Amino acid sequence: MARQPILEFWYEFASTYSYLAAMRVEAAAAEAGVAVRWRPFLVGPLFASQGWTTSPFNLYPAKGKNMWRDVEREAARLGLPPLTRPAQFPQNSLSAVRVAVYGQDQDWLVPFSKAVFTASFAEGRSIAEPAAVVEILDSLGLDGTQTVRAAAAEANKTKLRVSVEEARSRGIYGAPTFLADDGELFWGNDRLDLALAWATGDRPKGLR
Amino acid sequence: MARQPILEFWYEFASTYSYLAAMRVEAAAAEAGVAVRWRPFLVGPLFASQGWTTSPFNLYPAKGKNMWRDVEREAARLGLPPLTRPAQFPQNSLSAVRVAVYGQDQDWLVPFSKAVFTASFAEGRSIAEPAAVVEILDSLGLDGTQTVRAAAAEANKTKLRVSVEEARSRGIYGAPTFLADDGELFWGNDRLDLALAWATGDRPKGLR
Repeated sequence: MARQPILEFWYEFASTYSYLAAMRVEAAAAEAGVAVRWRPFLVGPLFASQGWTTSPFNLYPAKGKNMWRDVEREAARLGLPPLTRPAQFPQNSLSAVRVAVYGQDQDWLVPFSKAVFTASFAEGRSIAEPAAVVEILDSLGLDGTQTVRAAAAEANKTKLRVSVEEARSRGIYGAPTFLADDGELFWGNDRLDLALAWATGDRPKGLR
Repeated sequence: MARQPILEFWYEFASTYSYLAAMRVEAAAAEAGVAVRWRPFLVGPLFASQGWTTSPFNLYPAKGKNMWRDVEREAARLGLPPLTRPAQFPQNSLSAVRVAVYGQDQDWLVPFSKAVFTASFAEGRSIAEPAAVVEILDSLGLDGTQTVRAAAAEANKTKLRVSVEEARSRGIYGAPTFLADDGELFWGNDRLDLALAWATGDRPKGLR
C-alpha cells in the first residue's frame, strides 16, 4: 500500500485562524489523501522574540478590527457557529496546550483540540483555568483531573518547550502553520489547500 | 441596464501582494461582473503610525523569508514570470504613486500600474528614481517627462496625501485592500475572490 503523504499542522489554542483551520483540516486532508499530524504549540514565545508583548491584533487596532470581521466571515463560509469573542483575547492557552502536548499522537488529541477551540471561539468560554480544561476532558469521557495533573509534570513541560524551539528552528513565526515533509512552510488558514496539494506532490509549474 | 457593482482596489507599488493582486484583478473582476476602481496609495505613513520604520517583512525575518517563498509560489500558480526581488525592498514608490494618483481614473492608470509592478517584481528593476518612471511612461506611448513633472505639482502631492488619509479613515492598514460599496474591507490578495463575491451581493449565510 502506498504511503500517505504527511502534513504537520502547527496550531495555537489562542489563535482565531488556528480555530478555523482546526475545524476544516480533517475533511480537507481526507479529500486530498493526506495524513495530518497535529502539533500543538505556543506562539507567545515566538511573538516575544519579535518584541510583541501581546497579539499583533491587539497591538495594531485597525488590523485587529478587520481580523475579527474576517474570522466572522470565514466562520460563516465554513458553516461554523457564529463567532464569539472570548472575554480575554488572546486567552492564556498554557493549561490546554500542555494537555495537548501530553496527548500528542493519542486518539483523543484531535477531539480534545477541537473541543478547546469550540469552547473558546464558538461558545466564548474561558479556557485559561486548569478547571476549564478538566471540564473539557471530562466531557470527552477522559479523566480530566488526572490528565491535567499529568500534563503539569516537569517532563511534559519540557516537551512543550522543545516543541516551541522546534517550531522556531523550522522557521515558524505564527499560527496556524503547515509544514510539508520536505520542510516547505505554509502560514495561515488560507494556505491549507495549497499545503495539502504540495504534500501530494502537486506543485505550481515553473517554481524553483 | 443594471448598474455594475464596484470594488475599490487599494494598492502600493512596493508591495509584493499588491503586485499579485494587480496582475489578476481585471480577469477576476470581469468574470464576476464587477467594476474595479484602482486606488494607488502609500502604506508607509500607515506603517509609521504603527511604529514600523520599514516593511514588517524586513522587521520580522522569519515572516519575511516565508513571504518571498509564498509570493514565488503564488506567482507560479498565477502563471506570472518567476519572481525577482528588487535590490532594495521595499522600493521607494513615491514617484510612481504620484504619477498613478495623477492618472486616477485615466485610461492609462491600469497599464501604467501593471508596468510598474512588472518592472519591479518580474524584472527586478528599480522604480525609485523619477527617470525609471519616465521610462515606463514612455514605453506606454505617454509623455513620461511631462507626466512626471505634472505629478510633482503641489496640488497632486496634496491629492496623494488626501488618499492616504482616506485610506486610514476607512480602516486600511496594509496593501492590497479591497473595499466594497458598503465599506466592507478585505485585506490581502487572498481575499480578492471573497471581496468580488461580496460586491455582487453573494455573502456567507448566517453572517451578521
